[in-house]
Amino acid sequence: MREVAVQGIGQTPVEEHWDRSLRDLATEAGLAAMRDAGMDRIDAVFVGNMLSGQVARQENVGALVADWMGQRGAEGFKVEAACASGAAAFRAAYLAVASGALDAVLAVGVEKMTETSGAETTAALATAADADYEGMQGVTFVGLNALIMQRYLFEFGWKHTDFGAFSINAHANGARNPNARLREPITERDYARARMICEPINLLDASPIGDGAAAVLLLPADKVKSGPRPKILVAGSAAASDSVAIHDRKDPMFLSAAFSSAHKAYDQAGVTPSQIDFFELHDAFSILSALSLEACGFAERGQGPRLALDGAIRLDGKLPICTQGGLKARGHPVGATGIYQIVEVAQQLRGEAGDNQLSKARIGMAQNIGGSGASIFTHILKAN
Amino acid sequence: MREVAVQGIGQTPVEEHWDRSLRDLATEAGLAAMRDAGMDRIDAVFVGNMLSGQVARQENVGALVADWMGQRGAEGFKVEAACASGAAAFRAAYLAVASGALDAVLAVGVEKMTETSGAETTAALATAADADYEGMQGVTFVGLNALIMQRYLFEFGWKHTDFGAFSINAHANGARNPNARLREPITERDYARARMICEPINLLDASPIGDGAAAVLLLPADKVKSGPRPKILVAGSAAASDSVAIHDRKDPMFLSAAFSSAHKAYDQAGVTPSQIDFFELHDAFSILSALSLEACGFAERGQGPRLALDGAIRLDGKLPICTQGGLKARGHPVGATGIYQIVEVAQQLRGEAGDNQLSKARIGMAQNIGGSGASIFTHILKAN
Repeated sequence: MREVAVQGIGQTPVEEHWDRSLRDLATEAGLAAMRDAGMDRIDAVFVGNMLSGQVARQENVGALVADWMGQRGAEGFKVEAACASGAAAFRAAYLAVASGALDAVLAVGVEKMTETSGAETTAALATAADADYEGMQGVTFVGLNALIMQRYLFEFGWKHTDFGAFSINAHANGARNPNARLREPITERDYARARMICEPINLLDASPIGDGAAAVLLLPADKVKSGPRPKILVAGSAAASDSVAIHDRKDPMFLSAAFSSAHKAYDQAGVTPSQIDFFELHDAFSILSALSLEACGFAERGQGPRLALDGAIRLDGKLPICTQGGLKARGHPVGATGIYQIVEVAQQLRGEAGDNQLSKARIGMAQNIGGSGASIFTHILKAN
Repeated sequence: MREVAVQGIGQTPVEEHWDRSLRDLATEAGLAAMRDAGMDRIDAVFVGNMLSGQVARQENVGALVADWMGQRGAEGFKVEAACASGAAAFRAAYLAVASGALDAVLAVGVEKMTETSGAETTAALATAADADYEGMQGVTFVGLNALIMQRYLFEFGWKHTDFGAFSINAHANGARNPNARLREPITERDYARARMICEPINLLDASPIGDGAAAVLLLPADKVKSGPRPKILVAGSAAASDSVAIHDRKDPMFLSAAFSSAHKAYDQAGVTPSQIDFFELHDAFSILSALSLEACGFAERGQGPRLALDGAIRLDGKLPICTQGGLKARGHPVGATGIYQIVEVAQQLRGEAGDNQLSKARIGMAQNIGGSGASIFTHILKAN
């Protein structure tokens, strides 16, 4: 298996891009990644996207984006795994380059969510859940996560306000990220007073939707010339699934697919959790931050919030998370999120993370979750 | 790059499966492929599907199907490339096994199209075209293909009835395939009198929609024990794209992505077109059969219909096509079609094609087309 490097990165700001189409956003990010890598021709474009068919009435976006980028002829397809579509496209691209069949593969994540009504977008997002056994009950995606959080508070004895530190950290970092959707720091008071969405999830527990695109260009590591920048290697790539319907899981408060994919990635990379310098996790809801930290071995069961309350997750902490704002503040254009995470890991490893640059960033991890724990992809990148 | 074998195959009949859900159909085909391969555990499930979000309001089908098959934990995602979603999933599975990262990967193609109204299904299929530049004109997918066929008749001097031989061949073979949606042979008279859909495409030029699922289980070739059956190797796997909008192409009557992907596949397999024993091509409309034969080097430009009129495409001809009925008679459950094609190639190579068995079937080719030529995947399989 060939070693694979992340050689180019690109992103658009996450915003309400009223004047930009899906293909425009993907093209801007894709061309930025190609420029960053100094490449003008690629073999393939794999597009991570969840909602283009339902929202933009556009499928076949692999060929569409390839063409719009000036890469007509390059092969392409769309990869979908609900909110983990971005990382799924990255994994498909990684496997393609690792196989030796393709050399230069672009993984683009793109989503456009703000042109439809809130009700339409909410209904489209609910297709990440089990349509026959959850959706038909009328439960929304935030509703499902609220059930998990409610149970977690009860089982482990936390108060809702104990989760505020996750959101405060994300907003603090997002405020310093020029590509973030929400650039306002928030306080404990803001968090405590935020409008309730679906008890116990309030507005500041939930990540905002948005339009945006991010892209990474993958190359075989041995074809990357050494230069002033560190070479960014994909040291671990793994994925796992759990039941889509949350009521079907043995324990709805344990992300078994996060556990499984993280441990496969640790094995491949030859590292332990204590060697991970920072972690771009999937904080679609603050409860997911806690569950992800626990499943990946950074906290004991039921103790995830402790890392936030102790400040361990801050830029100067033991395990910084969501260093550019995470889903909560950078924003969550669902199919693009997994690629934004990889871009942000690469920025840190290169020392290009601007005002959010970590002092120590040699091994970074990204984890993207589709459907409240059903499809989970974990990647570990190393600076070389 | 590891050599990859198609070790298990499975399919459901293509029908109006009123009593079956998307996950049920995928599971039936997937478990059949696992039984056929003698496996009870797989690493990954890649699902080829175009319309689940729009029609069944269900995304995240990779994890969903893995779970329903009893493979909870196995990684998965959905792959979409319009009507070529099936072959795109097969290619993703091929690359994953070839890379060495995964051993047993199931590619399942599934589509459920008959529960929605005709107008809804037509609108959903139109998302294979360019939404901003074609769809917004109100043109349907059959309308776009009709424009191509009209021009082809004019440019190359064929009569509409010259295309009847494609449909007659497909129906003759479909009548002997127990999994085919249309099992009635048709005559020249039937073809000439068929109801016009969008001039010059009549009902018997067009493939029917349907519900169905097909699956193939891929393994590294060196892990396949030799037995009474021939080993089926993936000798060539390639893909290419063209502009999605047909008016943007240099020549709307030339499938440049078919040419490019076929020639890459020939090179990889080390064969010439004359060595291909049979060809499962993408006869969504009869015009596409002609264009595919021309682009892949089996006929001169503008001479595709000649192969049909001369009988070369029949089971006893020089280049049998659509040996189990093709899209026209087996049916075209869009995201599943590409996997049905691979299953049918494997059946021929194994000598398990029943009443449609070819006398010579050592090297077979399958080509799956998404969006009237935008996303094209070509695979060459060899019996070993």
